[in-house]
Amino acid sequence: FTPLVGAPKRAGDGPRGRALNSSPVEKMTENGVSSRAKVLTIDTMNPTVKKVEYAVRGPIVQRAVELERELSQGVKKPFAEVIKANIGDAHAMGQQPITFFRQVLALCSYPELLNDSTFPEDAKSRARRILQSCGGNSLGSYSASQGIESVRQDVARYIERRDGGVPCAPDNIYLTTGASDGIVTMLKLLVCGEGATRTGVMISIPQYPLYSAALAELGAVQVNYYLNEEKCWSLDISELQRSVDEARTHCNPRALCIINPGNPTGQVQSRQCIEDVIRFAAKERLFLMADEVYQDNVYADGCQFHSFKKVLFEMGPEYSSTVELASFHSTSKCYMGECGFRGGYMEIINMDNEVKAQLTKLVSVRLCPPVPGQALMDLVVNPPQPGEPSYDNFIKERTATLSVLAEKAKLTEQVLNTVEGIRCNPVQGAMYSFPRISIPEKAVKEATANGQQPDMFYCMRLLEETGICLVPGSGFGQKDGTYHFRMTILPPTDKLKILLDKVKEFHHKFTQKYS
Amino acid sequence: FTPLVGAPKRAGDGPRGRALNSSPVEKMTENGVSSRAKVLTIDTMNPTVKKVEYAVRGPIVQRAVELERELSQGVKKPFAEVIKANIGDAHAMGQQPITFFRQVLALCSYPELLNDSTFPEDAKSRARRILQSCGGNSLGSYSASQGIESVRQDVARYIERRDGGVPCAPDNIYLTTGASDGIVTMLKLLVCGEGATRTGVMISIPQYPLYSAALAELGAVQVNYYLNEEKCWSLDISELQRSVDEARTHCNPRALCIINPGNPTGQVQSRQCIEDVIRFAAKERLFLMADEVYQDNVYADGCQFHSFKKVLFEMGPEYSSTVELASFHSTSKCYMGECGFRGGYMEIINMDNEVKAQLTKLVSVRLCPPVPGQALMDLVVNPPQPGEPSYDNFIKERTATLSVLAEKAKLTEQVLNTVEGIRCNPVQGAMYSFPRISIPEKAVKEATANGQQPDMFYCMRLLEETGICLVPGSGFGQKDGTYHFRMTILPPTDKLKILLDKVKEFHHKFTQKYS
Repeated sequence: FTPLVGAPKRAGDGPRGRALNSSPVEKMTENGVSSRAKVLTIDTMNPTVKKVEYAVRGPIVQRAVELERELSQGVKKPFAEVIKANIGDAHAMGQQPITFFRQVLALCSYPELLNDSTFPEDAKSRARRILQSCGGNSLGSYSASQGIESVRQDVARYIERRDGGVPCAPDNIYLTTGASDGIVTMLKLLVCGEGATRTGVMISIPQYPLYSAALAELGAVQVNYYLNEEKCWSLDISELQRSVDEARTHCNPRALCIINPGNPTGQVQSRQCIEDVIRFAAKERLFLMADEVYQDNVYADGCQFHSFKKVLFEMGPEYSSTVELASFHSTSKCYMGECGFRGGYMEIINMDNEVKAQLTKLVSVRLCPPVPGQALMDLVVNPPQPGEPSYDNFIKERTATLSVLAEKAKLTEQVLNTVEGIRCNPVQGAMYSFPRISIPEKAVKEATANGQQPDMFYCMRLLEETGICLVPGSGFGQKDGTYHFRMTILPPTDKLKILLDKVKEFHHKFTQKYS
Repeated sequence: FTPLVGAPKRAGDGPRGRALNSSPVEKMTENGVSSRAKVLTIDTMNPTVKKVEYAVRGPIVQRAVELERELSQGVKKPFAEVIKANIGDAHAMGQQPITFFRQVLALCSYPELLNDSTFPEDAKSRARRILQSCGGNSLGSYSASQGIESVRQDVARYIERRDGGVPCAPDNIYLTTGASDGIVTMLKLLVCGEGATRTGVMISIPQYPLYSAALAELGAVQVNYYLNEEKCWSLDISELQRSVDEARTHCNPRALCIINPGNPTGQVQSRQCIEDVIRFAAKERLFLMADEVYQDNVYADGCQFHSFKKVLFEMGPEYSSTVELASFHSTSKCYMGECGFRGGYMEIINMDNEVKAQLTKLVSVRLCPPVPGQALMDLVVNPPQPGEPSYDNFIKERTATLSVLAEKAKLTEQVLNTVEGIRCNPVQGAMYSFPRISIPEKAVKEATANGQQPDMFYCMRLLEETGICLVPGSGFGQKDGTYHFRMTILPPTDKLKILLDKVKEFHHKFTQKYS
């Protein structure tokens, strides 16, 4: 037994800094301790992980967290608080959870409450149904890896209602740990080949950086297609064609990812456009991945959400029985905004049976998605019905949340478009605006000299001067020479007004300074 | 607009069976629909995914689920119920959750309950602290990707108490989605190189198949070291040496994984052995991964849990400031058994700072671990304290659960050792017995003729005849020519007795039949 002597003051800090020499040669340090290069260094770690980037939680957000800490320590700043409009985190911005959902979750967590007369009967009956589907009637049991069967049944019925009766089989539903988990799992299945036969995956630019991050990690080829900013970020089939044709010269494009309503760009696809995309995917033999997590977030007049599944089946058996599709949904967005529960599902259509068996096997390694998130997903797809005690309040809460979001979408577009040098497309859906910003040549040069993207430089200045945290467009991809930022519409209306005014003022000053 | 016509009766079923031809040539099927080979087939999917195996939820469990369905449909079987002793799923086997934990989770889910006078004050104060650390005071907000800061602080204090004051920095704690998530993330960082320089990872045989599955998926080289069944599944340094020396001829061994207490083998490592392993890792330049999820599950007299962290720091700065270590814990095992919440943490020691930054970036892509699981992890590391209203009941519940487990560990070993042809090491800890079984030569031949591992054949027969679901030893790895099964000790005592008697009877009959 060796007694504890001379332990370093902070765990995890060796007596010296970073090992510069990666050979296993021993060295003596000033305190006489023999020292070796680390086993795991930046030079010897997984190179694909190094390529991963995720702007939504990147350096600007790290700086925002530091600024918050400095403020709380009393450091003087030109602002009183940091406003994070970088991520679609509704509750963090003050949106209230749906009462019914949380009642059922409390009942499921602590079933003693089923004897509490203050809880409504419909909440209790939902909780009983969920618990009866759990091993030992406990949220603490593992579920089937594909998800709780009764939840998958409820998801299937939800999809059938949503899609006007198009059939949905619970066997085609996989519950997931948020939509991200499902998307990464599907991409994982699709990746194969080397060099010119390596799997290419088509993603929109601008895109949600989960896609580029997952493709980098999997070593797949990212194949960009550009949304048309001039036409409200719409998708042109001719651009898809250009993109796939070019990709075929150096990789094997096998999948096409669509985010609708769009993230970060907020557009809502027309039914016609979805039909054209499906035809294109069939013709070019692409597996379709439809990220539809914002399906309830549609605000603009004349816009409507159409699921890829519904349109596919309306196109008749030539398509509905051949085109391979995975669509994704989540508890994190829409009117519920329950990001922390990491609930989600994917539906797979026309997947080869042997591949499906492999998918089921693959998800079993991680045992199961979090059961509270599965319970929440169940409530989202099976909310209170007319005549049930919680119905009126549920509708009231849902409607209120969605109307406020619609107002804020409009407000954001309107105010940003009053600023000279900012041009914002209508926020038709989702939770973000992605305006184009003019950055003066002098600022571009200063950014480049700092080794920064010009819009990163812009957003960093904005953060330091106003406390507003946005994400630079370069984190999502954009046409060369254009600059943008992504801003959520989630802050409460009064705060959003202040935020927009501050952005306006900052943009004016920034432009003057660098002109 | 194309109206919906002739949609197949079941979504996901094309008009024909599996595409046998993987070329993109169009064919006409009997109903006149043009048909194409699928984009994603077993031949064109990710080859590393195909190599993944996960016995704990493999074919035997799928058959058990089918049998349950058949029973519920009234199909006659030689048994009335399926008993699943295949997976460490405590609540599914009737173990009750800790009341205090579930009270706090209910309060966090539905904070209205903070006004309910029937909840104890200590539960309320824990809930308030957790909610104050959540954005918008809601479990529905994303947390920091590394996990909620206050939870990481509580984890660090827990580790310091557990390890007799060895310091722990909250910055070195990463909350995870169960321990599996942390283990896979760490392995992902470690994998690099090609051919003879490809990363090798040493794992025990028998092992928990998450490790082999993750290594297969990452394309890393699995380097086996064998536990010594004759010495109660202990770990011999000479065997580690043999293993690493052989591995160096064809790969680059960079990490050594240890599961203590052992899964599936139930041994508890001695302090001396841990010290020897640490010395070995230092000498051979291996990153240590300590899977310590069963740290409270120690039953045998004279056995005690020693964390790798504590032993490392007791060995003095030569080791404590150089050996790289990641250790893993979870909410799923010990006395809580809350598998469904997918809570966990890892602590990293001596990790290179640049690699740590990469780790933080990597986990940010998945946004955050499930927040209810983080809350539960917080309660595990910060349970009721003496003097608090819930303390006595908490201690009573925890003690009761752990004593029953200890009884069942003993019972399992005793009964199995009364069977001729079964030999069971003491279940010193964890939740499993892994007895060695004799399989007659004739049964081995019949299994081989069926293309089955002999112990898979044995377990399948056991399942069909008795309804008992165990996992064959071949799913965990074992010395060639030896056969085992893994059985959890989790069924309630009365059911466990029946189960053990049935196994005894089955083994006897099976041996007679094939002798």
